[in-house]
Amino acid sequence: MPELTNKLRKFVASLDEAKVRRESRLFVAEGTKCVLDTIENFSCRYLLATAKWLDSHQLNLNADIIYKVVRSDMERMSHFSSPPEVMAVYEIPDDIIEPASAGSLSLALDRVQDPGNLGTIIRIADWFGIRDIYCTNDTVDVYNPKVVQATMGAISRVRVHYVDLPEFLEGTEVPVYGTFLGGENIFTSSLSSGGIIVMGNEGQGISREVEKRVTRRLTIPSYPQGVATSESLNVGMATSIVVAEFRRRQF
Amino acid sequence: MPELTNKLRKFVASLDEAKVRRESRLFVAEGTKCVLDTIENFSCRYLLATAKWLDSHQLNLNADIIYKVVRSDMERMSHFSSPPEVMAVYEIPDDIIEPASAGSLSLALDRVQDPGNLGTIIRIADWFGIRDIYCTNDTVDVYNPKVVQATMGAISRVRVHYVDLPEFLEGTEVPVYGTFLGGENIFTSSLSSGGIIVMGNEGQGISREVEKRVTRRLTIPSYPQGVATSESLNVGMATSIVVAEFRRRQF
Repeated sequence: MPELTNKLRKFVASLDEAKVRRESRLFVAEGTKCVLDTIENFSCRYLLATAKWLDSHQLNLNADIIYKVVRSDMERMSHFSSPPEVMAVYEIPDDIIEPASAGSLSLALDRVQDPGNLGTIIRIADWFGIRDIYCTNDTVDVYNPKVVQATMGAISRVRVHYVDLPEFLEGTEVPVYGTFLGGENIFTSSLSSGGIIVMGNEGQGISREVEKRVTRRLTIPSYPQGVATSESLNVGMATSIVVAEFRRRQF
Repeated sequence: MPELTNKLRKFVASLDEAKVRRESRLFVAEGTKCVLDTIENFSCRYLLATAKWLDSHQLNLNADIIYKVVRSDMERMSHFSSPPEVMAVYEIPDDIIEPASAGSLSLALDRVQDPGNLGTIIRIADWFGIRDIYCTNDTVDVYNPKVVQATMGAISRVRVHYVDLPEFLEGTEVPVYGTFLGGENIFTSSLSSGGIIVMGNEGQGISREVEKRVTRRLTIPSYPQGVATSESLNVGMATSIVVAEFRRRQF
């Protein structure tokens, strides 16, 4: 079993920076649940854990990537306020972008900023069998440690792609849905079983450039209709409701 | 305009403690958006703001409850990492609990712990015209500053009650719905327009005691059905989908 060097400790700590992740093509998962949910699905470069954790978990990993780490080092490497018993450093898989296929449902995110929101959206996608999420390049990075944790393992099953979104949507032949004020009532409109559903930024919604590529404008109506309530649902709630409504039509 | 005393500063800072709020019957809202969304709907005891904020906002308040506060004092009173320009201390309204009426839809929360989740659920209730939420006494306090902020003003329009939930449900004559693994598919089941929808704790779901009072067991099916995905939706997402499905039937 190798020794944890200062260099490696500092490197793992620096994996909360998008730039470091991009250059090294590595990211980190923290905590027992998150590591066990992902270890089968990503190629592990380093596993760092306390002696106690290693004693109680059997992993099918090469011994020379396993580091026994004391708690104070965990604290220095962790990206959370309570340091975990285990951290895994994984290789970022290659991003293979294919055109959206007509029969399948996918999501597109226009500058979603909050790590918790992206994590929530990935869980929703996973629950409802959406395999691909296309994000603008300035959407929060899926390999941010907070996003990784918030997906509760769903990051293993949903592919998140970063693209020039207006260009990507311009080239697609499937219907492009977006939610806006004053669109069609999603509950009473016809919906195709496949297509791309665009969700917008937390404060600003969908940008003008992306909006131009939307072919169907939908609204989640409030109830009773026409009564003033909250100005909007947050993007996680709205995604939950919209995706559930598309899938409901299939039952 | 009165002077901020040390005593008042310390008191406002202590309003993140449930015990202090319970004894004083006061709570705090922070930040311009949160204060402006709530100031018309709660009785304001103190308004504390920077000189700059007071110069640019006109409020219909008695001058002797308005305190001009310097930034360093805001930092010491705030319950957030970035201190706001304004804080309002409001009176907690009396909690008037009436039996759930047959025609209306309401929510019940069984030990929901996360302030962000409760805030999200209150926004969903507000969006879909649910007026009452009945919580177990150990559900997170709605007057916690993080919940207040997460409701984005919806706290003004939704009434959150703390009750002995099993007893409350025992006494009701309306249908009591709950989500469980292996219940009826919510998308294809008959649903009444009124009733109480119970949502459970983040990790443990609905307790045995509360489950005994549930008259209809529902499930949000994953898609495609029977394929293993995430073990569960979080309580905010699940509430969004369930409440939207009840209201969808009314359109």
